[in-house]
Amino acid sequence: MPDPESPLTVGVVKETKPGERRVALVPTLVGRLARRGLRVVIESGAGEGARLADEVFEEAGAEIGDAWAADIVLTVSPPSVADIGKLGESAVLAGFLAPLTNTEELAAMKKAGIRAFAVESIPRISRAQAMDALSSQAGVAGYRAVLLAAQRLPKFFPMLTTAAGTVPPAKVLVLGAGVAGLQALATAKRLGAQATGYDVRPEVAEQVRSVGASWLDLGIEAVGEGGYARELTEAEREEQQRRLTEATTGFDVVITTALVPGRTAPTLVTAEAVRGMRAGSVIVDMAGETGGNCELTEPGKEIVAHDVTICSPLNLPAEMPVHASELYGRNLTELLELLVNAEGELVLDFSDPIVSGACVAGADEEVR
Amino acid sequence: MPDPESPLTVGVVKETKPGERRVALVPTLVGRLARRGLRVVIESGAGEGARLADEVFEEAGAEIGDAWAADIVLTVSPPSVADIGKLGESAVLAGFLAPLTNTEELAAMKKAGIRAFAVESIPRISRAQAMDALSSQAGVAGYRAVLLAAQRLPKFFPMLTTAAGTVPPAKVLVLGAGVAGLQALATAKRLGAQATGYDVRPEVAEQVRSVGASWLDLGIEAVGEGGYARELTEAEREEQQRRLTEATTGFDVVITTALVPGRTAPTLVTAEAVRGMRAGSVIVDMAGETGGNCELTEPGKEIVAHDVTICSPLNLPAEMPVHASELYGRNLTELLELLVNAEGELVLDFSDPIVSGACVAGADEEVR
Repeated sequence: MPDPESPLTVGVVKETKPGERRVALVPTLVGRLARRGLRVVIESGAGEGARLADEVFEEAGAEIGDAWAADIVLTVSPPSVADIGKLGESAVLAGFLAPLTNTEELAAMKKAGIRAFAVESIPRISRAQAMDALSSQAGVAGYRAVLLAAQRLPKFFPMLTTAAGTVPPAKVLVLGAGVAGLQALATAKRLGAQATGYDVRPEVAEQVRSVGASWLDLGIEAVGEGGYARELTEAEREEQQRRLTEATTGFDVVITTALVPGRTAPTLVTAEAVRGMRAGSVIVDMAGETGGNCELTEPGKEIVAHDVTICSPLNLPAEMPVHASELYGRNLTELLELLVNAEGELVLDFSDPIVSGACVAGADEEVR
Repeated sequence: MPDPESPLTVGVVKETKPGERRVALVPTLVGRLARRGLRVVIESGAGEGARLADEVFEEAGAEIGDAWAADIVLTVSPPSVADIGKLGESAVLAGFLAPLTNTEELAAMKKAGIRAFAVESIPRISRAQAMDALSSQAGVAGYRAVLLAAQRLPKFFPMLTTAAGTVPPAKVLVLGAGVAGLQALATAKRLGAQATGYDVRPEVAEQVRSVGASWLDLGIEAVGEGGYARELTEAEREEQQRRLTEATTGFDVVITTALVPGRTAPTLVTAEAVRGMRAGSVIVDMAGETGGNCELTEPGKEIVAHDVTICSPLNLPAEMPVHASELYGRNLTELLELLVNAEGELVLDFSDPIVSGACVAGADEEVR
């Protein structure tokens, strides 16, 4: 039993990555953690990027203090090796930790005896949906990608009927129909565009149609034995890319969302496709962080090539910090409620696939 | 009868005002003017801002040449005194000419014997609707104002239901329910926000509701004799402003559109209202060119005051140059079809209220 006079502390640190405006917890969630017996400590200025002043956290019941010294530390972006050095012995760390690529940081956590839970590694089972930070942030990113495209396009998204005639709606193609892609399709459709989705997995066509978008059928079937998708042959892949390139040139906006965890993003929009697009068209490449889905993308930059604007924003959720932080904070709170029992004690049940799946650093026997 | 060997020329000049990306005519309209017997001359690079290359105009049948020397010269922004000097004797000029404020330029036109038609001065009668450039560009501006607000707001516009809970829709207030205001309301509503409109003219409530928005009722009636609106008393005006200030603080986004031609814009959003708004809220002030509707607006700038972002873009239509130019070009083409008869001759019929209304410089007997 923990001493009720000295409850476990949850630290919310000020993010240090340039451009990161999110914060791992919002004031409205402080009370929920308090009811679990947890004391919330906020690093001064942690909410600044999301315009959440220290006072607002204090009014909600949090304290301003040394968040890095807390028993459980919450972050948005993966902490640096220097940051990891600020954590207390046997601290619990939870957040985006990029376990597939941040090998040096992971080694530092293990060496320091930190027990680290990466939200990216939470298994995607239905019981874990409420903790799915990848999805919640991808939804934000898909929405923002459409706003960015609409801002850059020199045309209306919706059809417009005026006394002097009509302008047709913009044609928007979204490549990749995961959470980000579906949110982008839904948002483009809302704004009045003609939205079309494509994915290498033909089984997501129904989801694309369910948000009001059309499905781009390239006419290449890859149905193998027992109805499962089979690997495309080399010749089929080339034909697929040729047809995709041809189809791409008919759109005003192309939003690409194809990410493969820990690997370089696949090329979906070739330089030839960009050359074929109408002057003034816009590409928003959401895979810039891993190289981009467009051959001409310059990650983190906005360029114009062949009169087509190619944007590659690296952290779209950070551009909408209030709701991105709110959703992310709820995901982390759900995770904490799994790691801390009703009495406010830390109980890491590694027989639970969520706990063992998410744990990327800890006592050796704890990590899968 | 004009010499069919030397038809009247229509010149489309390259705009010189900084940030002006629109062009007075688009390639798709060149053929329509040609059918009227007009020869279209484009200043090289005139379409650059809208990504319309010289070649695209040439393919449509236009020539690249000295557009300022044409018989009829089309512009978007009012030409400077130096530009006016480049016009040929007895040239016809049509475009936005800001006749109420650009007195020096107007004097220069009159002195030079130019016959000038200001699209702002076209009477708003139903026969002239297709020429209504103020409306077509206000529609573009209203749409862009919402995109800007959505980009700046750290929250979603639409309500979002996720596994970890729900986020409520953004609350958007639009002050002034003219063309820009109604388009802003419709766009905010499309994007999923809760849209509310207000105007000093209670009779536009129905139009606000027709785009799916709510009407903000401040509870002050100004119905005078015979159902007509009467002037508010001083006390009523103060009470109105007090109630508006109070109402404003409940919104995430406020878009103001109250313009009075040739006069300073009225203050609708006081400093007190800004102070009362939630941190992270956004104001887009579309009246910046005449001082702004918000007391804290800095025209042409984006500032943060009391944790509220206040944007005052000065030329929103120029941010969407393709469709803005297309709609504007159609407006001008309709006007030209009134000034040039089926035989391609310039026939200025000053008994037509559109012709006499629009003419702001010309032979004295021609101007109203």
